[in-house]
Amino acid sequence: MSFAELNTPKRTIMTPGPVEVDPRVLRALSTPILGQFDPAFTEIMNEVMEMLRQVFQTKNHWAFPIDGTSRAGNEAVLSSLIEPGDKVLVPIYGRFGHLLVEICERYGADVHTIDCPWGEVFDSEVVIVEMKKVSPKIVAIVHGETSTGRMQPLEQIGKACRAQDVLLVVDAVASIGGVEVKTDDWCIDAVVGGTQKCLSVPSGMAPISYNERVEKIILSRKKVERGIATEDDNRYMRSSLPIASNYFDLGMLQDYWSPRRLNHHTEATSMVYALREGLRLVLEEGLDERFARHKFHEQALISGIEAMGLKLFGDPDNKLTCVTCVEIPPGVDGEAVRSMLLQEFGIEIASSFGPLHGKIWRIGTMGYSCRKENILSVLGALEACLIRQGAKVNRGEALQAALDIYESKEVS
Amino acid sequence: MSFAELNTPKRTIMTPGPVEVDPRVLRALSTPILGQFDPAFTEIMNEVMEMLRQVFQTKNHWAFPIDGTSRAGNEAVLSSLIEPGDKVLVPIYGRFGHLLVEICERYGADVHTIDCPWGEVFDSEVVIVEMKKVSPKIVAIVHGETSTGRMQPLEQIGKACRAQDVLLVVDAVASIGGVEVKTDDWCIDAVVGGTQKCLSVPSGMAPISYNERVEKIILSRKKVERGIATEDDNRYMRSSLPIASNYFDLGMLQDYWSPRRLNHHTEATSMVYALREGLRLVLEEGLDERFARHKFHEQALISGIEAMGLKLFGDPDNKLTCVTCVEIPPGVDGEAVRSMLLQEFGIEIASSFGPLHGKIWRIGTMGYSCRKENILSVLGALEACLIRQGAKVNRGEALQAALDIYESKEVS
Repeated sequence: MSFAELNTPKRTIMTPGPVEVDPRVLRALSTPILGQFDPAFTEIMNEVMEMLRQVFQTKNHWAFPIDGTSRAGNEAVLSSLIEPGDKVLVPIYGRFGHLLVEICERYGADVHTIDCPWGEVFDSEVVIVEMKKVSPKIVAIVHGETSTGRMQPLEQIGKACRAQDVLLVVDAVASIGGVEVKTDDWCIDAVVGGTQKCLSVPSGMAPISYNERVEKIILSRKKVERGIATEDDNRYMRSSLPIASNYFDLGMLQDYWSPRRLNHHTEATSMVYALREGLRLVLEEGLDERFARHKFHEQALISGIEAMGLKLFGDPDNKLTCVTCVEIPPGVDGEAVRSMLLQEFGIEIASSFGPLHGKIWRIGTMGYSCRKENILSVLGALEACLIRQGAKVNRGEALQAALDIYESKEVS
Repeated sequence: MSFAELNTPKRTIMTPGPVEVDPRVLRALSTPILGQFDPAFTEIMNEVMEMLRQVFQTKNHWAFPIDGTSRAGNEAVLSSLIEPGDKVLVPIYGRFGHLLVEICERYGADVHTIDCPWGEVFDSEVVIVEMKKVSPKIVAIVHGETSTGRMQPLEQIGKACRAQDVLLVVDAVASIGGVEVKTDDWCIDAVVGGTQKCLSVPSGMAPISYNERVEKIILSRKKVERGIATEDDNRYMRSSLPIASNYFDLGMLQDYWSPRRLNHHTEATSMVYALREGLRLVLEEGLDERFARHKFHEQALISGIEAMGLKLFGDPDNKLTCVTCVEIPPGVDGEAVRSMLLQEFGIEIASSFGPLHGKIWRIGTMGYSCRKENILSVLGALEACLIRQGAKVNRGEALQAALDIYESKEVS
């Protein structure tokens, strides 16, 4: 059996991740590699840390990627903080809240949850009251929940956690680079970002940042692995249990991302190149400008969807800018429409999970995919597919509504 | 603070990993991405599985990459097999044996070790006797130990493990794609490969393969995470403890790498492209031809090193083909030579760890870095740096000796 050269179709990717990668990031990926301890490479690592601090809007020293997909970032942070029996409060408003519960439980946490209906978010006061009742070590919460297209306000929760000396861990995988994530202002102690969403870098890395409150716990659990530990390392008096995972041990990872350059893993060179270029483009565009761009294209998409006669799903006051959830009209087979979009138009949109499966489509407008031609393509194609599937829509209205928005402003 | 475009120096990388990446793999990295459930992408995933089976020389169904660096592969396999209290025997003959111990201990194993001096390997009989004495659930061992440049013969150990119903887990990170790794013939139950060594793909993925004996344990611990578990999943009767890590849970990972396409993580698209191209090039070259190429260039390198008057380190009968360890001559500052090689010639070679730190250099001849011009460059530059540092060497002999080898055969 022999294998042909890689030959992929061209797609317009309008899911809530992974999304299209900026061609400049793709080019950076093809840069020849450097050794992990080459000073030219460690300088690039330092630059990535500084860029991440800016994107996370933090003065934290620690800001670096975990070599794994987004959930690896969540697991690195949570496994490095949680000791068996630790209380963690997880407010759940979609699938990725369940994932946080899952990770916490696997590391032996005593997990308390509160739920709200999918499509809504929590009143901050509800979370704060529960936090005071449970007195957890950690509140772990999702910022942008792609499964429902909602965004949880965090500022009040963060301030309350800080006042009660509770750690706030935030999954900002879907929001970082697309909407405001104010790590320091919102009193987030540890934050996890994703690459394949609003940063428009391929999946495979999870940038994280954490402050001294988190570092203190990590240092209390520090254990340098056999085979490379020095006598100093072995004399170190640990006051708590070592971290359960070797790969996700933030104590060793931060020694690797510091002048000590402790040889933990071999850094994923090409992905670091891609992340650096992705972050550079975000900073070149400007955070405020980038957030405004996401807002603007969201408006065009929403206008088109509504003009077509379709309904948006979920609480409009807490919509996640970069994910638009659309109710599948009664009688329409949602998967047939998605399949036709892909096969006839080369456009990918997403379904959802659990209680929303078969009820909504999710259209992402993230990073490099968040462009005028993509918004117009998806609106035009969706209308055609719906008509073809026998659905009633207002013909020809969607693109006119979106074009109206685009003509109203000089943003591209 | 603004950041310039990525601009990296050109290096000749002659370490035991990461090594230079084939330009065709670099090009594959820059392919625009596909969505993870796009049929065009899942077809690529299936191809990667088939290619991995061929490279691992196995009929195992399960063969796929873990999205993380090499040690993520070791941790995925060991954490999915080990329940607290399980006995694991780890024979240690270098740094990466210690890493296996470390991972096993963190997951609660009752670890038994045997040691042999760094630079040697175990007589298979010694391991087998210990295995019979300890009666472990698992023997975990490194195949190619880059820290010492040795290779452990596994065939007898594998057969003995199978006869005693002990699982054999092998770290073949450094050997896969450069020397023979006969997963099935040697009765290896789970094998972990590396990308950034003899496969010449960037770091960031760890291909693994395992058989039905391993799968049986994984299924006995199966737990599909909250938020995506179906009623069938929740009715599933687990006979053992769930796997401690969510990210490394092979039960969910194999559901992702199967027609079910369970939405665990978001596959690292660009790295899958790179891995596919790297594996394609290995299979196009042919496994036997590739192993012969590594042997041939090793011979040229060794001839040159010896002709210069330098001594090889370690037991010559069990040398790892793709890593050549050279004793640093008395009075020579090994780090000064390495630094001069990098700064003046753009060539990177490696030092070593623990008891060998400061005593040996390690020169890798792996994958795409294993080429005539690289071998000749490193020999010529090493001689010049040694002379410059005041060491006594046989001037002009190294390159002549290597050229003699190259002229003796028509292999390039």
